[in-house]
Amino acid sequence: MPIIESIPNVSEGRRPEVIAKLIAAIRDTPGVRLLDHSSDASHNRSVFTLVGDAPALKAATLALFEAALADIDLRSHAGEHPRLGAVDVVPFVPIEGATMEDCVSLAREVAASVAERFGLPVYLYEEASTDPARRNLEDIRRGEFEGLATKMSSAEWTPDFGPAIPHRSGGASIIGARMPLIAYNINLNSDRLDVAKKIAAAIRHSSGGLRFVKAMGVMLEDRKLVQVSTNLTNYQKTPIFRVFDLVKREAARYGVSVLESEIVGLVPSAALMSAAEYYLQIDRFSNDQVLENRLR
Amino acid sequence: MPIIESIPNVSEGRRPEVIAKLIAAIRDTPGVRLLDHSSDASHNRSVFTLVGDAPALKAATLALFEAALADIDLRSHAGEHPRLGAVDVVPFVPIEGATMEDCVSLAREVAASVAERFGLPVYLYEEASTDPARRNLEDIRRGEFEGLATKMSSAEWTPDFGPAIPHRSGGASIIGARMPLIAYNINLNSDRLDVAKKIAAAIRHSSGGLRFVKAMGVMLEDRKLVQVSTNLTNYQKTPIFRVFDLVKREAARYGVSVLESEIVGLVPSAALMSAAEYYLQIDRFSNDQVLENRLR
Repeated sequence: MPIIESIPNVSEGRRPEVIAKLIAAIRDTPGVRLLDHSSDASHNRSVFTLVGDAPALKAATLALFEAALADIDLRSHAGEHPRLGAVDVVPFVPIEGATMEDCVSLAREVAASVAERFGLPVYLYEEASTDPARRNLEDIRRGEFEGLATKMSSAEWTPDFGPAIPHRSGGASIIGARMPLIAYNINLNSDRLDVAKKIAAAIRHSSGGLRFVKAMGVMLEDRKLVQVSTNLTNYQKTPIFRVFDLVKREAARYGVSVLESEIVGLVPSAALMSAAEYYLQIDRFSNDQVLENRLR
Repeated sequence: MPIIESIPNVSEGRRPEVIAKLIAAIRDTPGVRLLDHSSDASHNRSVFTLVGDAPALKAATLALFEAALADIDLRSHAGEHPRLGAVDVVPFVPIEGATMEDCVSLAREVAASVAERFGLPVYLYEEASTDPARRNLEDIRRGEFEGLATKMSSAEWTPDFGPAIPHRSGGASIIGARMPLIAYNINLNSDRLDVAKKIAAAIRHSSGGLRFVKAMGVMLEDRKLVQVSTNLTNYQKTPIFRVFDLVKREAARYGVSVLESEIVGLVPSAALMSAAEYYLQIDRFSNDQVLENRLR
């Protein structure tokens, strides 16, 4: 069975009874597994991690929209995190036996159903985007719910599906497909924050570094050492090992060494397997050679 | 469900109708999956790879013994491969959710049942062994079926289970528990066989190298380059990356570099994950962080 992951972000992080209804909407959908969920009161936002095949995820997402739109009103919503709608963002991520194309198709299908069933405008983003200028999540969300009516009055911001005006209480939603994100940090044997910041600037895409790397230099106060904190947005095209080796080399430039690295949260097996293949110079390796893969 | 692997070696590699009965005995056992099987006529031997939980593997092994003892007579058996019995060797290997202790228990339980049901002497080997002098497969098998009656007349070779005389047609069996074997080869950018042989001698246990490495230097005639061919008998205690790095360093001593490495056949996921953790210096990594593991 192909496995796709979805990580819906919903604009509700304070009312436990509403959050419980959102969880129930996902859990009650057959064929879907809720792997994780977290709610943040200051952000006033909840993030859910669910997996399943395309039809099951479509059903779960529609159920989630129904529950969210019934109880969340953006006109009286406040929180630190920027948001455009009640169900703010829904990415679909290929995990196993599913391609990016499968996730793009699923995103479009869900977007069309959401628009039709709830009369809600939907923008497609990242890999599902139909317009390079609307690929980036932050660009679509800029102006937030409060600026949405004005933004949508411009032809440039006609939604991909649904009406060209905001949903009264639900705003608009951003649905798309992307690769798994890997949160990857590299700790340096140093307390020099300037060095961590220079390395971060050297490796990240925005300032001339690797294409699928976001990075910043931070101080770990309790350990008195600095960290290059990264997000890897496409581990197939910019693999972990290349980021690690580049940080190591840049650090050496300042006479600093790498103490350790850490993966925060979940990582696809293939992202680590590729590091083993790279460093061991393994030739002609197939995933079928992994014993556990043969058992499934 | 805990998963254990078993790789029974049976002394029949020539008669297709007998081999078919052996395969059927395994396949007809509920809860067992036959992942692979191969038969060699010159060795006159077949090797099966099956997985399941302990009760299923016990049932499959007993069914295999029954089929093998019905059709194989060691008194008229000839082949290049050394053998002591009709079902010559049965190792149990921990794969997932099962410990070495589980496999040792299973080996003893199967050995006791085989001895009781078929009146066959059984020796325990490797991790299931009861005597350091009888740990090694080659030591137990030395003298083969033809020398078995004499060997067993010595108190030193009283079997762990069953009668102290050979089964008339089936000889004796060797049942035990061990870690998965990894067949791992490292190709050098060189045609100097003496260098490959020196490196093999440096890294293998028998001549002073790493504890769980068997190695030899061989010439790949078609590619005009040499290979250090290894078997890693405990990847947890002597990990792949340590073997690779040591070969690289020894090769540099002769001005030779490593071209590539290859894994032949199956490898447990953890053996490659540990290489990724090592080279990326990943701190505090848990198998629960691998997305695929969370799905199961």
